[in-house]
Amino acid sequence: MSGSLSIVGLGPGPSYWVTPEAENLLKGVSDVVGYATYLARLPARPGQTRHESDNRVELDRAHHALDLAQDGRHVAIVSGGDPGVFAMAAAVFEAVEARPAHERDLPIQVVPGISAMFAAAARLGAPLGHDFCAISLSDNLKPWPVIEARLKAAAVADFVMAFYNPVSKARPDRLRHAFDLLRTVKAADTVVAFARAIGRPTENLSITTLAEAAVQPADMSTLVLVGSSETRLIARDHARPWVLTPRSYGSAR
Amino acid sequence: MSGSLSIVGLGPGPSYWVTPEAENLLKGVSDVVGYATYLARLPARPGQTRHESDNRVELDRAHHALDLAQDGRHVAIVSGGDPGVFAMAAAVFEAVEARPAHERDLPIQVVPGISAMFAAAARLGAPLGHDFCAISLSDNLKPWPVIEARLKAAAVADFVMAFYNPVSKARPDRLRHAFDLLRTVKAADTVVAFARAIGRPTENLSITTLAEAAVQPADMSTLVLVGSSETRLIARDHARPWVLTPRSYGSAR
Repeated sequence: MSGSLSIVGLGPGPSYWVTPEAENLLKGVSDVVGYATYLARLPARPGQTRHESDNRVELDRAHHALDLAQDGRHVAIVSGGDPGVFAMAAAVFEAVEARPAHERDLPIQVVPGISAMFAAAARLGAPLGHDFCAISLSDNLKPWPVIEARLKAAAVADFVMAFYNPVSKARPDRLRHAFDLLRTVKAADTVVAFARAIGRPTENLSITTLAEAAVQPADMSTLVLVGSSETRLIARDHARPWVLTPRSYGSAR
Repeated sequence: MSGSLSIVGLGPGPSYWVTPEAENLLKGVSDVVGYATYLARLPARPGQTRHESDNRVELDRAHHALDLAQDGRHVAIVSGGDPGVFAMAAAVFEAVEARPAHERDLPIQVVPGISAMFAAAARLGAPLGHDFCAISLSDNLKPWPVIEARLKAAAVADFVMAFYNPVSKARPDRLRHAFDLLRTVKAADTVVAFARAIGRPTENLSITTLAEAAVQPADMSTLVLVGSSETRLIARDHARPWVLTPRSYGSAR
């Protein structure tokens, strides 16, 4: 009997950001595979088996989910945010690629979610209103010089930038190194925002400048946004300023 | 009496991609402002006023919504996809910036949505599994040389690219010009995908190469994805290949 695998994005945290597609799908599957933090967001359902795994073994988790689906189970593998953005979708398809070709008829569906990047942008105003890029600062899976080259290219071409995985225990300094590099190209007063745990009880946002950004705390739950030369603040008397990257470029100069 | 304004992302089209946050908010507002195509997705609700507008006057629409909210109405301005990505959020905050400072205490909320980019990626597999950028090819609001510089930078730094607004009636050739430029930097067999009207009845996906991409039809509902040097296809016997950009970079060489 044929099983199936769905790679499901749960969004940043709250249930109001879980799509009806994800919600309905999670009600119907026989097995849910995921990191414990994500499984903890889901209600226990009779007859549904949960498979918790450690966050550091994404490829093993993907193979485990594929094994279950090959055995005829209907499996959801869950991810925070959008599964396609530095999350489980790539790991699953890497596993698919490594397995026998005859397994490729397995029905696989990717269920998109609200990404951390767009949730953070929503809280801030419109920081991504113009061309932007997303860069993982983790050098576990790519050489640091590749990251440096991308940071430099994005700075020179004046993209707004979103950084995923800004720090880790093993490499606490990489965000500071990224800021050091950006300061050689971009103005000291470039808008920088730190968005932590958006939508969760510990949500925290702060807005600073590239000159001051290095002293801000960040962890693996923090998304860092760096503005373009046109990104600016709209001051408010009784609230955090809005962050705006206007749709037009260059014409206001 | 104080009104409010919510900038609401409806996602790419189907109701299964409308978040509970957006759905609940749209039930409670007194006024909905938006392009006719987006308003048509919403059920008529007694006591709720709709304000249709033409797609080309985003800033006017934003001011209209702000006027209503300043008059004490609870207003939703709706956008397809995510409102922060080449959509209404930037237009609204540009309007906020242009209005008197004392109006800035108006409660404004941005409600994120499933973006066209991530919906397209979900259908294709994991094309955005590594660093990526989003570029609007419209030169209505920025000079074409800026777009060219960004395309070149993104190609040299080997980002996956998502193109919004790939063509228009006024400028039918800009996508072809973008491909011409990319071919001077990127390999002819680079994976290119066209994703049209994802989630809607006319949904259409096609996968090609940079060498062949110029002859593909595209319109303003088409999102174009251009792979990095590592983006590859996973062939399937009975279906379109999966598109994978692996999480690792360089190590496989």
